[in-house]
Amino acid sequence: MLKPKAVVLFSGGLDSCVCLAEVIRTHDVALLHLNYGQRTEARELRAFNEIADYYNVTERLVVDISWLHEIGGSSLTDKSLEVETGIPEEDSVPGTYVPFRNGNILAIAASWAEVIGATSLVVGAVEEDSSGYPDCTVEFYKKFSAAISEGTRPSTKLNIDTPVIAMDKAAIVRRGLELEAPMHLSWSCYVGQEEACGKCESCTLRLRGFSIAGVADQISYAK
Amino acid sequence: MLKPKAVVLFSGGLDSCVCLAEVIRTHDVALLHLNYGQRTEARELRAFNEIADYYNVTERLVVDISWLHEIGGSSLTDKSLEVETGIPEEDSVPGTYVPFRNGNILAIAASWAEVIGATSLVVGAVEEDSSGYPDCTVEFYKKFSAAISEGTRPSTKLNIDTPVIAMDKAAIVRRGLELEAPMHLSWSCYVGQEEACGKCESCTLRLRGFSIAGVADQISYAK
Repeated sequence: MLKPKAVVLFSGGLDSCVCLAEVIRTHDVALLHLNYGQRTEARELRAFNEIADYYNVTERLVVDISWLHEIGGSSLTDKSLEVETGIPEEDSVPGTYVPFRNGNILAIAASWAEVIGATSLVVGAVEEDSSGYPDCTVEFYKKFSAAISEGTRPSTKLNIDTPVIAMDKAAIVRRGLELEAPMHLSWSCYVGQEEACGKCESCTLRLRGFSIAGVADQISYAK
Repeated sequence: MLKPKAVVLFSGGLDSCVCLAEVIRTHDVALLHLNYGQRTEARELRAFNEIADYYNVTERLVVDISWLHEIGGSSLTDKSLEVETGIPEEDSVPGTYVPFRNGNILAIAASWAEVIGATSLVVGAVEEDSSGYPDCTVEFYKKFSAAISEGTRPSTKLNIDTPVIAMDKAAIVRRGLELEAPMHLSWSCYVGQEEACGKCESCTLRLRGFSIAGVADQISYAK
């Protein structure tokens, strides 16, 4: 039987890696990756391609949205701003927030999904771990999903699925182990290229997840 | 007193030209233009710059979203598909529909608006004249506006304003005359570069608007 088609937003990070491992069991998968002038653009793209190769996914689309860099407003894309270390304070929007980035990504994904006939947009967002990002919440995805339904052809039926949104990092690591997801090929660091820095927000959350799950993270960290 | 800031989505067409003439009376304006591999990309960009010069607007952003061309699915961006002539049948989605194009454009505009502190996103959409485009309806803008509110910083207050959405083309032409909008610099044709074709959907609607308003359209049409 023909599987339904899913567009998976695939950064190459841990969360989207485990999402892909989840979704590929039931769907024909197309992978979308975005370059937006982030510091670790090349490293993320490498992770994207290595994991796509691992699963033999041939339908891939890489889109350059580097105007987000030009627009600025985030320490991830503006090299004059410093990337924060550690876990951000509760209820504050972190400096790494890229203004409405996920809105842009979802819009591109919706266009592609409509053309290729996908019925699911899979996003590896994690609400708890992306504390303070306003475009990473369940409520945001719900509102954006309503906008997609309204703004596409009546025959297009497209849902946003967020399989790991309610999980914490440790639960994602455990689920990744169960699914034999190639987490060793994933990249989360906001700073490093060869070795992960181990200190930025994203590394801190990842390392804590592996630590709580009680398994070793197999990527290299700077000493 | 400092005027509030508005990001105007500015294709260089008749509708956005009249919108700009409207909004510039009360707002400090920033102009956003999109290239998306449409046939008339260069001609539209020329209209954008000429009208921006006319109003001395210096804050301009041109973003290339040519992946919409790569994704395909529309006769506007896929040169293997023919552009329809005349007025489309009611309740059908025209072949010129670019899948979720306005969702993409609004997302970019929202990112820019959030960074520069604009409180209004102005869109020259016309519901009646863009018959069948699902991403040109009042309901779509309402849903997308809700997604923007949810997905941006709590301090960002951004409304989508559609000043001409309920007007027909003749009313827009009349309003343009009242505001002395430089409609002679605007470009609507989906096909031509030097002269407008006078036959495509967009030319047909424009010409009918001028005709009903009882004034001459001052751009050149192919004989």
